Amino acid sequence: MERIRVIAFDADDTLWVNEPIFRGVEAEFLALLEKYADPATIRERLVAVERENIGVFGYGVKGFLLSLIETAAQVSQDRLSGADIQKVIALGKEMLASPVELLEGVEAVLENLCRDYSLMIITKGDLLDQESKIARSNLAPYFDKIEILSEKDEDAYGRVLSTHGVAPGEFMMVGNSLRSDVLPVVNLGGHAVHVPFATTWEHEQVAVSAMDQSLWLTLANLGELPPCLPQQRPCFAR
Amino acid sequence: MERIRVIAFDADDTLWVNEPIFRGVEAEFLALLEKYADPATIRERLVAVERENIGVFGYGVKGFLLSLIETAAQVSQDRLSGADIQKVIALGKEMLASPVELLEGVEAVLENLCRDYSLMIITKGDLLDQESKIARSNLAPYFDKIEILSEKDEDAYGRVLSTHGVAPGEFMMVGNSLRSDVLPVVNLGGHAVHVPFATTWEHEQVAVSAMDQSLWLTLANLGELPPCLPQQRPCFAR
Repeated sequence: MERIRVIAFDADDTLWVNEPIFRGVEAEFLALLEKYADPATIRERLVAVERENIGVFGYGVKGFLLSLIETAAQVSQDRLSGADIQKVIALGKEMLASPVELLEGVEAVLENLCRDYSLMIITKGDLLDQESKIARSNLAPYFDKIEILSEKDEDAYGRVLSTHGVAPGEFMMVGNSLRSDVLPVVNLGGHAVHVPFATTWEHEQVAVSAMDQSLWLTLANLGELPPCLPQQRPCFAR
Repeated sequence: MERIRVIAFDADDTLWVNEPIFRGVEAEFLALLEKYADPATIRERLVAVERENIGVFGYGVKGFLLSLIETAAQVSQDRLSGADIQKVIALGKEMLASPVELLEGVEAVLENLCRDYSLMIITKGDLLDQESKIARSNLAPYFDKIEILSEKDEDAYGRVLSTHGVAPGEFMMVGNSLRSDVLPVVNLGGHAVHVPFATTWEHEQVAVSAMDQSLWLTLANLGELPPCLPQQRPCFAR
């Protein structure tokens, strides 16, 4: 078995809080538009608009904000005011400037692991926004490489590993999303650690069987990772 | 003098037409909003909104689209209709799907240069949009590396060169923007070729002195580049 040499971390909801910021803005958005339609109807519309738009706009705050505006235009039966649009845009700008709140224990884990492993961030979303969050997190010094991708699928991980000359068996990905952090890496022959976050965005949800789950390690929080490395390698049955 | 080993190209308005697409959409936008304010006033507002928003949204179609919407909300004196917002969003989506029109002679130049040089694309904008344009251009096979950046300044070029182990003296950047393609590379000690495009976005315009201009090569079109390399190296006075 190859020695794990590189550990990569997802960023949003793995290193810092993200989904609750989106859900908070969504709640403000629904309240703002309550005069046009009931919140449940608007939310249903928003999920549909987002689903349609992901292929065009990609992931991240800007695409989300455009989907909020498009939803507002659709549900308002043409009674939408310019002032409301400006309020929605202001919500998006607040998101982009909101403080980066590290998840518990993150810094201690990185401090510990960076002594023995080469650490990476592999995240997706808007380029400038992700770079700005990494800078504001003050975590950049722990990472040798940072990759911001438009999609985190097998092809994308394959390209990243090849760019950095890392064999799948030497690579471990740690993140909160089965769809983006765990399954593609496991399929490539890499190691993966799932650290679920309280909230998962609809578009990241996947169903997995009990059998599949033996292929990766699931931890309650990032603090549980260092004790599994490298002494407790049987954690990784593969 | 080191041998030039890597030639990097900007993409928008260097390899393919871009600014005219933005200007075309802007014209449709001004026509759509004519009922709210006169086009000159709206355009002035748009340039100001874009300037304010670049630091928050970064470069690319999504930020532009958000600036269009914000401008519409501002100039409509609260009489903006949901239908108009949907039309503006549709304009943005058309931009993201518009065909990639290569500039004249681009493919022949790349075909020629890729035999002797390692070629790169270094561009900025929205991640997914730039990737999609590169894919639709069918030019990807000519390039060894593609870098999509949030900003093209000295720091960013320095990071790219260091990632790929390229010394500034071995590196040449070719592009239409003095601000993003030429000046930062020249300042780092690299070679730069300016191929002006008919239209330059306000936010890319810089003033340069006649003296500065001896530091890079200016060509009328990309087809003039291969004859300058490597026999006519005195082109590069530095």
